[in-house]
Amino acid sequence: MTEREVITSTTNPKIKAAAKLQQKKYRTQTGLFLLEGYKPIEEACTADVDIQCVYTTEKYLQKFDFIKDKVILVTQPVLEKISTTESMPEAVAVAKQKEYTLDSIKNAKKIALIENIKDAGNLGTLIRSACAFSFDVICLCADSVDVYNPKVIRSTVGALFKLPVIKTSLKELKDLFPSHTFIASVLNHKDIVTPETIDYTQPFVLMLGSEADGLTKDAIDAADIKTTIPISSKTESLNLSTAGSILFYISSRK
Amino acid sequence: MTEREVITSTTNPKIKAAAKLQQKKYRTQTGLFLLEGYKPIEEACTADVDIQCVYTTEKYLQKFDFIKDKVILVTQPVLEKISTTESMPEAVAVAKQKEYTLDSIKNAKKIALIENIKDAGNLGTLIRSACAFSFDVICLCADSVDVYNPKVIRSTVGALFKLPVIKTSLKELKDLFPSHTFIASVLNHKDIVTPETIDYTQPFVLMLGSEADGLTKDAIDAADIKTTIPISSKTESLNLSTAGSILFYISSRK
Repeated sequence: MTEREVITSTTNPKIKAAAKLQQKKYRTQTGLFLLEGYKPIEEACTADVDIQCVYTTEKYLQKFDFIKDKVILVTQPVLEKISTTESMPEAVAVAKQKEYTLDSIKNAKKIALIENIKDAGNLGTLIRSACAFSFDVICLCADSVDVYNPKVIRSTVGALFKLPVIKTSLKELKDLFPSHTFIASVLNHKDIVTPETIDYTQPFVLMLGSEADGLTKDAIDAADIKTTIPISSKTESLNLSTAGSILFYISSRK
Repeated sequence: MTEREVITSTTNPKIKAAAKLQQKKYRTQTGLFLLEGYKPIEEACTADVDIQCVYTTEKYLQKFDFIKDKVILVTQPVLEKISTTESMPEAVAVAKQKEYTLDSIKNAKKIALIENIKDAGNLGTLIRSACAFSFDVICLCADSVDVYNPKVIRSTVGALFKLPVIKTSLKELKDLFPSHTFIASVLNHKDIVTPETIDYTQPFVLMLGSEADGLTKDAIDAADIKTTIPISSKTESLNLSTAGSILFYISSRK
C-alpha cells in the first residue's frame, strides 16, 4: 500500500485552490467545481463525472473506498475551509464540469429553456423536477445563476448528473429546433392557452423566465404558444420552481 | 404634528426586544413576530394583522405614510440589527401573531395537513401554493418549523395573511372532520391511487410529511387514500414543496 497524502494546513496550495471554487469566477476559469457530501460524490461517480480528488477526514475514510485512489486525507479545519455548508459534509470533492455541445442535444424532444434565473435553490429544484418528469435537456439562457453553484448542486439532489444542462441562447435553439413548438410560461397575456390543452406528444421547448421579471420580450415574441397555470385571484403568482415543475408535470401526463 | 420618536442606539431596550424576535423562543413567549420589507408590511396591514410598530430610516419614511402613527425612525445600524436579511429591508415591523381556534376552521373543505416540515423555504412555498390553489386552511402538525420564522414569511410572498395556518394534531383533525377524505402523499406504498383519479369535489384533508421521512405511520394508517405523483425511475423523489404544490394543483382542477 502506498502512503496516503495527508493535508493538515488550511494554507496548503491545493486547499486554497479548492476553496476558491466556491466562487463562480474560479469555477469558470478552471472548469472545475465542488461536490459536497457522500451522496453527491457517489452519484457523480456513477454518472461518470471526472472526479479529480476527494478530501475527507480519517473518520469517513472507509466510506470512500469506492474511489480510494482519489482520496486525500485532511484535518477537520481543512475540510471546513473548502466546504460551503454550515454542517460540515463527510467529504468535499473537486470535479470537472461536464460540457455539452449543441450537436449532442440535437435529438432532444422535451426541452426546458430557463432564462435569467437568479435563485440557486429554484434552479436546482427545476433540474430535479425536469429529471423526474423525463425532460431530455435543460438549456440555460441569458444571465442565469451558475449551474455549478454549490447550492444549485445540493438542490438537484443528484439529478444534475442525470440530464444535460447546457448554456446556450434562444437564437441557437430556434435554429437547432425549427419544428419544435416553443411554449412560453407567462403570467398575464392575451392569447393564453391553458397548459392542459397543449399537445405535448410533439417535440417542444418549454420556456421559463426569471423570478422577478418573467420571460424577456424576445422569448415571448418567439413563442408559438403562451400558457399560464390558473391560480386564485388572491395571489399574484407561484414560486418559479413550483410553476415550472407543475408545467413539467402536466407535459409528462399527456 | 407630534414629535416622532427616533432611536439611534442598537442597545435601546425596544430594539433589543425586536431583535430577539428573530428567535422562535421569543416569538413563542411574546406572541409577536417580525415583518421585513415594504410589501409584507403593506400586505399584513391590508389583511388586518395587528402591527405594533414599524422601524424605518429617514430615507423610506414617506413610503410608510399609510401606517405613519406606528412608525419609529431609526438609524441604519439599528435597522440592520433587527433585520434578518443580507440586503437591508426598507423597514422592519413588529406584529402580533394571528391565532385561530379549531372552531374557526370547522367549515373548511380543502385542507392541507403538513407534518414535521423542517425547511422554512418549503413551508413558505407550500403556503403560497395552497393560497394560489384556493385551499381553506393549512394545519401544521407534530414538530414543524415555526410559521413566523422570517424565511417562511418571505417565501409566502404575502400569502401567509390570506389563509389561516393553525397548529393542531392529526387526532384533533380526525375528530373535527369525521367525514372528510384523508389523502396521504407517500413515495412508495401498496394500494396507491394516482392523484388525478381522486374525487376532490368532496371535502378532503391532503397530508404531506417531512422532507427526510415523509408522513408518520400514524398519518398513513389514518389515510382513506394513499397517492403519489408518478415520476421517472431515474429520480427518487421530488422536492417536498414541489410535490405538495403539484397535488394542490391537481386537486384544484377537478
